[in-house]
Amino acid sequence: MLLDFLASLSHRRQMPRTLVALLSALLIVPTVAPGVASAQTPRQSTFHVAEGLRDRALKDGTAWTVLESLTTEIGPRLVGTPAMTRAKDWGLAKFESLGFSNIKVEPFSKSSWVRGAESASITGPYDFPLSILGLGGTVPTPPKGIEAEVVVFPAYADLLAAPKGSLTGKIAVVTQPMTRTQDGSGYGAAGVARRSGPSEAARRGAIAFLTRSISTSDLRSPHTGQTRYADDAPRIPAAALGVPDAELIERLSRRGPVRLRLNLASTTSDKTLAWNISADIQGSTRADEVIVIGGHLDSWDVGTGAIDDASGIAITTAAAKLIGDLPRRPARTIRVVMWGSEESGGSSEAYAKEHKDRMGSFVIAGESDLGADRIYALQLPAGALAAPALADVPALMAPLKIIVSREPAPFAGSDTEGLQQAGVPVLSLRQDASRYFDLHHSPDDTLDKVDPEQLSQNVAAWAALLYVIADSDVDFRALAQASK
Amino acid sequence: MLLDFLASLSHRRQMPRTLVALLSALLIVPTVAPGVASAQTPRQSTFHVAEGLRDRALKDGTAWTVLESLTTEIGPRLVGTPAMTRAKDWGLAKFESLGFSNIKVEPFSKSSWVRGAESASITGPYDFPLSILGLGGTVPTPPKGIEAEVVVFPAYADLLAAPKGSLTGKIAVVTQPMTRTQDGSGYGAAGVARRSGPSEAARRGAIAFLTRSISTSDLRSPHTGQTRYADDAPRIPAAALGVPDAELIERLSRRGPVRLRLNLASTTSDKTLAWNISADIQGSTRADEVIVIGGHLDSWDVGTGAIDDASGIAITTAAAKLIGDLPRRPARTIRVVMWGSEESGGSSEAYAKEHKDRMGSFVIAGESDLGADRIYALQLPAGALAAPALADVPALMAPLKIIVSREPAPFAGSDTEGLQQAGVPVLSLRQDASRYFDLHHSPDDTLDKVDPEQLSQNVAAWAALLYVIADSDVDFRALAQASK
Repeated sequence: MLLDFLASLSHRRQMPRTLVALLSALLIVPTVAPGVASAQTPRQSTFHVAEGLRDRALKDGTAWTVLESLTTEIGPRLVGTPAMTRAKDWGLAKFESLGFSNIKVEPFSKSSWVRGAESASITGPYDFPLSILGLGGTVPTPPKGIEAEVVVFPAYADLLAAPKGSLTGKIAVVTQPMTRTQDGSGYGAAGVARRSGPSEAARRGAIAFLTRSISTSDLRSPHTGQTRYADDAPRIPAAALGVPDAELIERLSRRGPVRLRLNLASTTSDKTLAWNISADIQGSTRADEVIVIGGHLDSWDVGTGAIDDASGIAITTAAAKLIGDLPRRPARTIRVVMWGSEESGGSSEAYAKEHKDRMGSFVIAGESDLGADRIYALQLPAGALAAPALADVPALMAPLKIIVSREPAPFAGSDTEGLQQAGVPVLSLRQDASRYFDLHHSPDDTLDKVDPEQLSQNVAAWAALLYVIADSDVDFRALAQASK
Repeated sequence: MLLDFLASLSHRRQMPRTLVALLSALLIVPTVAPGVASAQTPRQSTFHVAEGLRDRALKDGTAWTVLESLTTEIGPRLVGTPAMTRAKDWGLAKFESLGFSNIKVEPFSKSSWVRGAESASITGPYDFPLSILGLGGTVPTPPKGIEAEVVVFPAYADLLAAPKGSLTGKIAVVTQPMTRTQDGSGYGAAGVARRSGPSEAARRGAIAFLTRSISTSDLRSPHTGQTRYADDAPRIPAAALGVPDAELIERLSRRGPVRLRLNLASTTSDKTLAWNISADIQGSTRADEVIVIGGHLDSWDVGTGAIDDASGIAITTAAAKLIGDLPRRPARTIRVVMWGSEESGGSSEAYAKEHKDRMGSFVIAGESDLGADRIYALQLPAGALAAPALADVPALMAPLKIIVSREPAPFAGSDTEGLQQAGVPVLSLRQDASRYFDLHHSPDDTLDKVDPEQLSQNVAAWAALLYVIADSDVDFRALAQASK
């Protein structure tokens, strides 16, 4: 505040800069170049506030506190479990205590799947207990389990190339590894085995399906994740193997026949209640223009969902809260949505349906759902780089080592897909995913894996960017239209 | 061979060195400095052979083949299980196929402990399944388990400081972390909680004991290991927690009371058969002087014992085999012992007892039992650096980036303790343990964690060093005596 006063003096009263510098030094505050600190033009003022937000965020502990609270006090948050109900109440209380307004609970009904006892063993050539996790949504085995010989496919394409009937009575095992990439694109390439593999194996006669975990780690902790049965294939039990377990089966199968036993149990429900919960930092002058951000509150059941996605909740909540704490709020409203069912789907559709008549009010949407490692690039909607109000964004991001990409954001997150499909422009603050797939969907998705410094870098980027957009009148739809 | 011939020509017939170099070049073999390659003196000849062994070992695949075979074909090898019997047969067949002689099986009887079903959960403030592993030798819980409130000790010293009776009816939880060190000394400092914690907790009234895994990793995979009950304390069930599990209990206990449920089952036997098996590369002229090396064949039950200690078996067997393949064997015998019960103890005493009348024939003993990461230092017995026959050892080790320490070896391995106590001198090729305690005693002790290049560096060091000692008449006992 004092700094602002001194800087404005130097402009309005033409006080010599040396005197300002001297006064600043005497008052033990840093000397600031007047052009940066001044409220001379709205654009300069916005930049100045955003810069302050960014730098405060780097030292602010809100995100860590939120993250620590959710992972410690609630734990895993699978849709359909009592923990998810506790998580919803936690979220509402957290919004309340952090000064949000317009706190809403939007229930929706969906099917749910809850894991039961699971085990698997190699039974031939010798007994060896395997490290496995049933895939989300898998059907159970019969109570006494399934035992059969395996057929190993070192690549998913090998399974697709197998003729119909070639797997009759067998357990199909895909052992394709996943490639580590900064942008997470290795996940799409490898993840298809998990999503579509069970039905592809069943079409060829297999009675169960196992995949090497969709993971970049070399650990035995298996990685779960949703599978999707096709309507035209038998539904067979499906699980993920620890990476060394998959490699052992590969090596044994090169020596001779390998037999496995698999036991999976689960319970399902067609009508489980889930909730999207949201809250606003209300805009000061154009509150009906809403920027939608958030992360998802649900998680898989095996870790404590720290990187997937308590971090996204923590980052976006903390960024909005820092903006809410400003003496003068930006023009537009910032809404944080804690999405209620990302992992098995449903929250995106539910929100889009609930708000289908208000799509025009959504200025832009974004989601933080790739952990808490540092952001390295910002992608805006097509044409947005032409907006004069956003001209300072690269300078705001540069100290955080974030580039502003020339490529428009193709996608913001699973939960904002419904909004995107309804025409809401999206942005993406791209996180370094190099380490993410070592941990996500595994028992090791826990608090200790989050680096507080990188978490803060995320908050800083979101807070600064959101403030600039919220304090502007940039029309992303019009810019996208104009760029065509 | 051709190279030897050319080099010896240059010495014996005074052929000009330029001519040797020219001939070498024409024959497309590398030019060698005559002083290195010549068989002129016994010391030079020994150095030359050792150098060749070292460099061949760096490219040799024997150790990897042995390691892959043991971990793939046998799997975990807990004393008292059928797998250990298969491992013994595997070892005998491996010695046979690699050209060893004097293959021996030395049975001994010991007590054994075999894990049953195990589980644990936080039951308050909410339900959370914990990742645990019973400690080796733990008593079982009653079949319906134990449920009680926990008392958390952030340091083992805090438990020792707790008054008698202060833990009555409670579960003691030690959450002290382990320090990562190159020389593995962090293990001794942290491991006491695992070995002595259960009895210390029981003396203070605790009904069960949990320790954060004695591990340098941040993973949920727990690390087992032997515990030792004191005779004067009640025997209470004891298990290791995954690291994030221990940290969660710590954080929850700062918020209020935490309750746990623990179920451990196991079977024990007082008279299990175990075996030390051994085989020789017989010496050419003084075969009754025996150098004892080896690794241990038994392993914990949760991984496949790749770094602990299939690697030690592979390294020492491969090194001895390379020496056995030489056209002229060294003077002394090299004996590889596959020790039969290191983890729960017994093999060291059994071997010392069996060979108590032959201790004078054991020239020196060493063991490889700290994984397969690179060796960074050699420690010899006290006074050994004064032996002229070992003067070239530093030059042999230098290209492998191994220093020859001025400190004598204090210890060679658990299995050679019996020999050491009976006066047999010991050597230690110290492996980098920085990564070892991330993995050892855990489900992730698997083949993929071994780096083939580092494995080969180990074989190269053992082969070169063994050859020099075996081809010498160094009397380590006399040198130690003289150095006092």
